[in-house]
Amino acid sequence: MDNIIVQKYGGTSVGDANKIKRVADRIIRSKEQGNNMVVIVSAMGDTTDGLVRLAKEIMPVPAGREYDALISTGESISASLLAMALHAKGYEALSLTGRQAGVYTEDVHNKAKIMDVKPARVEDELNLGKIVIVTGFQGVNSQDDITTIGRGGSDTSAVVIAAALNAKVCEIYTDVDGVYTANPSLIKNARKHKVISYDEMLEMASLGAGVLHPRAVEGAKEYGLEIHVRSSYNFSEGTIVKEVSKMEIKNPVTGIAYDENVAKIAILELPDEPGIAGQLFTILANEKINVDMIIQSNQVDSHNDIAFTVSKDDLSRALEITKDYAQSIKAAKVVNDKDVSKISIIGVGMVSSPGVAASMFSMLGGNGINIDSITTSEIKVSCIISSKDTEKAVKLLHDGFQLEK
Amino acid sequence: MDNIIVQKYGGTSVGDANKIKRVADRIIRSKEQGNNMVVIVSAMGDTTDGLVRLAKEIMPVPAGREYDALISTGESISASLLAMALHAKGYEALSLTGRQAGVYTEDVHNKAKIMDVKPARVEDELNLGKIVIVTGFQGVNSQDDITTIGRGGSDTSAVVIAAALNAKVCEIYTDVDGVYTANPSLIKNARKHKVISYDEMLEMASLGAGVLHPRAVEGAKEYGLEIHVRSSYNFSEGTIVKEVSKMEIKNPVTGIAYDENVAKIAILELPDEPGIAGQLFTILANEKINVDMIIQSNQVDSHNDIAFTVSKDDLSRALEITKDYAQSIKAAKVVNDKDVSKISIIGVGMVSSPGVAASMFSMLGGNGINIDSITTSEIKVSCIISSKDTEKAVKLLHDGFQLEK
Repeated sequence: MDNIIVQKYGGTSVGDANKIKRVADRIIRSKEQGNNMVVIVSAMGDTTDGLVRLAKEIMPVPAGREYDALISTGESISASLLAMALHAKGYEALSLTGRQAGVYTEDVHNKAKIMDVKPARVEDELNLGKIVIVTGFQGVNSQDDITTIGRGGSDTSAVVIAAALNAKVCEIYTDVDGVYTANPSLIKNARKHKVISYDEMLEMASLGAGVLHPRAVEGAKEYGLEIHVRSSYNFSEGTIVKEVSKMEIKNPVTGIAYDENVAKIAILELPDEPGIAGQLFTILANEKINVDMIIQSNQVDSHNDIAFTVSKDDLSRALEITKDYAQSIKAAKVVNDKDVSKISIIGVGMVSSPGVAASMFSMLGGNGINIDSITTSEIKVSCIISSKDTEKAVKLLHDGFQLEK
Repeated sequence: MDNIIVQKYGGTSVGDANKIKRVADRIIRSKEQGNNMVVIVSAMGDTTDGLVRLAKEIMPVPAGREYDALISTGESISASLLAMALHAKGYEALSLTGRQAGVYTEDVHNKAKIMDVKPARVEDELNLGKIVIVTGFQGVNSQDDITTIGRGGSDTSAVVIAAALNAKVCEIYTDVDGVYTANPSLIKNARKHKVISYDEMLEMASLGAGVLHPRAVEGAKEYGLEIHVRSSYNFSEGTIVKEVSKMEIKNPVTGIAYDENVAKIAILELPDEPGIAGQLFTILANEKINVDMIIQSNQVDSHNDIAFTVSKDDLSRALEITKDYAQSIKAAKVVNDKDVSKISIIGVGMVSSPGVAASMFSMLGGNGINIDSITTSEIKVSCIISSKDTEKAVKLLHDGFQLEK
């Protein structure tokens, strides 16, 4: 089937009955332009948080399977309400759960990966001329149980469904109107990108720019699917995320990202045995805790330390696991710090422009901002700094690399 | 599998986190007595009403399929929370949707009938020693879409699942502790039945005694399944609903029921053509409107009228349909009355005790209560009276038939 557009609306876009009606208008606008419409929705506003609160009243750490069965109801509610809003305007529409839309995930709960999409039902309904609404954020595993794919996962749902349907574009509607060189609420002269490459978007997303979930960008890159990030409050063009050739790139740095949802854990005075880092990070990975930066220092005449960062949400669980492990290997002490943030510069041109990282360190250090640790990749440099310096650092770097131009 | 007990908890029993924890305790008590536990739950308190309100903000009369997808989330929420409450107390438990529990319904929405139950997954999980929680009120149709089986349908879910599992008893927990000779909040000396027959319970249920849904009683009768109606607030024995031999019956009248959820519609001055009643009631049946009492008067020298009662919830829809139909056959007028209620005496012994109906009419008429219309069956007599006389009538009949004894 041709001319399929997949749209995804986040929780704030469908926050109440009136907002749902406005989303329906927007869908109809695209439908009337001759497109076959598939729409992925998140749960309304704070629904998910309300369900989580309810669960925690019953059990501090609810088991994965029931937790998924519980919170997935949020998307079912918004999807069927959106279908009703389309009916009210005279359009044929229906809501499908992740399972009904053929979204199959691995047998893991809370953060399951999507393994396959078999959208036969979606195609059948499109062939009948219907607008198809699909619950984001969820799928079904081999046991026929509902799974969820982690917070922000509706972006990923949208991308994999769009890829499976061979959609011409996947439009992600959000409360900002595109991807900027830096957070526009912080940096007044931040510039909106018309186009950004998958790799840069991936780094922006991973580093907390917040408009798009990194797994969604990875998926889009894998399938060569174009993503259009745009605002659900206006009709202006947003930012297209697609493959960009190196020849088109002017500034080695294209964006400044920061992430305040970071916490640092360190084990001090480790015994000098091989394989300790591997063991610890395997245990954390098995518990589905994403470890981001890892800093290991092995001085010859001193004790060894190992430090790493996780998201603040995972801190208490990661800390517990790390303390247990530290005790088992007789390490001296585990410490943690929540008052940190990660600031990053991103650009696919960095790899061919030596000295960019050094410029970053000078700009920060020269203005009294202490760098706790550093990681680099081909297209980004990240530093852990004190939370209180975040805003100042973003401004310094945005000006320093002249991103307003 | 032996020793299966099916329990059903209504919306008030699982109204908040603490109530859910108390329900978990009660389930565990039965589990510890060596029973295999299957538990059917309704949606928490006002959840369903809240979802209905939300739907009506979007569309005054939401379409069946999406309405079902929406409101069925209420049971999913309470089922998974109850499973969590059991986990918190150290018991293995899981929640299953109607579909996962194998509850198949006809291809109708909002008031679908259950056609078949294939509880393979329920049995598998019981064999693993788990407590199985099943969402009441819902199933799945041949299109793999969620259907709901009408308000009060969780009782029916419990009975058909209990029958399919060959359970030894189906316990229905409610906010009263059994079936009384009349509403105990109205009649101070109302007596609790230890045992009541299916047929009497069926009449009590249909006539608004409110403790048990009539379709559930029908199902139990069909399968010879014992129902135990009891309170979720204490541990006293409730009322057993089962087959009772006529020999055991002493008083011809065993209960007084009343139903205030009644409205009357009448078509006046019908043309004198055959088949009119049949046509009208077929149209209403196709719209899933239950017509209760029908009174047709065909005086030779006068015009014909036809009157019938429906539940107050169905009044506006039924009235609309009736008016359209009346116009098409050129009847004079359609009138309706909401200020009526139905009062009934019930007893399987009535069939062999002549004069019971006459006594009822005398007791009412002799005390100034006007009888609008009458229907009778082998085991009950019902009268439509004015709403304002309801309480007085119940007291008169309870005393008159000496039900306190």
